[in-house]
Amino acid sequence: MDFMDEPLSQRFTVLYTHTSPDPISDFLTSHAASVRAVVSVGRLPITAEFISKLPSLEIVVCASVGFDHVDLDECKRRGVTVTNAGDAYGEDVADLAVGLLISVLRRIPALDRYIRSGQWTRLWDYPFGSKLDKKKVGILGLGSIGSLIAKRLEPFGCVISYNSRSPKPDVPYIYHPEVLSLAAANDVLILSCSLTDETHHIVDRKVMETLGKNGVIINIGRGGLIDEKEMVKCLVEGVLWGVGLDVFDNEPEVPEELFGLENVVLSPHSAGMTAESLNNVTEVALSNLKAFFSDQPLIFPVQLD
Amino acid sequence: MDFMDEPLSQRFTVLYTHTSPDPISDFLTSHAASVRAVVSVGRLPITAEFISKLPSLEIVVCASVGFDHVDLDECKRRGVTVTNAGDAYGEDVADLAVGLLISVLRRIPALDRYIRSGQWTRLWDYPFGSKLDKKKVGILGLGSIGSLIAKRLEPFGCVISYNSRSPKPDVPYIYHPEVLSLAAANDVLILSCSLTDETHHIVDRKVMETLGKNGVIINIGRGGLIDEKEMVKCLVEGVLWGVGLDVFDNEPEVPEELFGLENVVLSPHSAGMTAESLNNVTEVALSNLKAFFSDQPLIFPVQLD
Repeated sequence: MDFMDEPLSQRFTVLYTHTSPDPISDFLTSHAASVRAVVSVGRLPITAEFISKLPSLEIVVCASVGFDHVDLDECKRRGVTVTNAGDAYGEDVADLAVGLLISVLRRIPALDRYIRSGQWTRLWDYPFGSKLDKKKVGILGLGSIGSLIAKRLEPFGCVISYNSRSPKPDVPYIYHPEVLSLAAANDVLILSCSLTDETHHIVDRKVMETLGKNGVIINIGRGGLIDEKEMVKCLVEGVLWGVGLDVFDNEPEVPEELFGLENVVLSPHSAGMTAESLNNVTEVALSNLKAFFSDQPLIFPVQLD
Repeated sequence: MDFMDEPLSQRFTVLYTHTSPDPISDFLTSHAASVRAVVSVGRLPITAEFISKLPSLEIVVCASVGFDHVDLDECKRRGVTVTNAGDAYGEDVADLAVGLLISVLRRIPALDRYIRSGQWTRLWDYPFGSKLDKKKVGILGLGSIGSLIAKRLEPFGCVISYNSRSPKPDVPYIYHPEVLSLAAANDVLILSCSLTDETHHIVDRKVMETLGKNGVIINIGRGGLIDEKEMVKCLVEGVLWGVGLDVFDNEPEVPEELFGLENVVLSPHSAGMTAESLNNVTEVALSNLKAFFSDQPLIFPVQLD
């Protein structure tokens, strides 16, 4: 990616898949012998097949918090080290989650469009938003990002509860062992868990119907956490009040039915994308590469077991 | 306003200026004898001339926090009582201030437009936003709303300082006696003071230049706090990073030069406009009217001295 090109190329010989005219498998084959490290910035899956084409591969450096696009079993089998970006983006992701929530409730992008299109000709002549104060907010996945979101929402007067595999110690929020009971108890669901076989489509039509017509969903986790087809239907049918989405099933594709909806705020997987954090992530990636090739301790190694 | 019509008309005989075909002065003249109360919802100035046309007027009920559009001296002289909406909108206004700030920094409406117009064809191929964490935020006017904004921004890692007529006791934030030093010390200015002769155009070109090209201004106070013409120039010239505006000099008119700018978020004076707060404000207005006409204590009387 552009923001990494210069710093990386000062120290390493960098080959770019995304600007190569060759299909990815040809690209890998032609550089098979020389590639010792892969820096994964986009969502290109690092599959067993991908890895099998790189016999000299020693490390996969993910410039992301998530690493569900990397075949960790195959990395382990091959003895390939994996690192991620640690919590580099945590604050930014939490900030965007809150920003999307206020944007959906208070219709910020919709009202911005309303003014820019010249429709504001009479004071207070538009559909009003909904108050954040006292909203009950259920967080799906109270890891580091979920916790940052909860902390930010407290002074807004929100009542926080959460679902995760098990209750967290020392957390002042109500625990719901089931997603359905989390949806039933709350006005807002924020999806901040990682995507696994267990959490795939964890928000299905039943969860959305349970959240109900005043319900809002914010997804800053992964597109696969929500049944996107059913979500589109729910939004069109008024089953939900609105959604704020930073992630999608098949990025950069976004269901076109969403483009005309006023109760939706769309964001291009930008939750972690601030200039400041990208500098930080570039430094972490570089540090991990340097450390690896000089036998120093890694900053954010991913446990392969 | 529509949201008040039914509750008010159940108890009182209501005449509407905004749906009357007559010019306002004819309207007032034709109802002169009968009008005992004015409920002020929009921004129609309640001037000495307005008041002089209503010899039976006893009370002006403002369904707003601000009352700078009411000639208080004339009300005092005539013995007309004035009430406002107390802090009915405080939380909503603070919420929108934070929402606008995140929207400007993280480019939420701009990126929403980007997706809806079909431009998202490659991951992370757009200008990135700026991080909220550790931003230095200066609040102009640390009254009830300014304090709610400060409280909300604390867990985002913002460093808060403020300007007001005098330092507030028991406030953990740095005090700046001058607006220029507040601008020099901060990345963000949030305007939440009331509009008076002293605060008119308190944010002039010099303040904007001092805030600088990474600076962001959020105005949820009144349009007149900022020199709008100079602000437009500063945005076009890149003197500022961006602005989020809920208020304008001459609402509902918005300078058309802003419509094409990507570093601007526009909101139609909607900071207090949530369904929940409007219900609340309607109740307060009704309660004040009922209390006044049955000699009971008023809820939010405005001091006329």
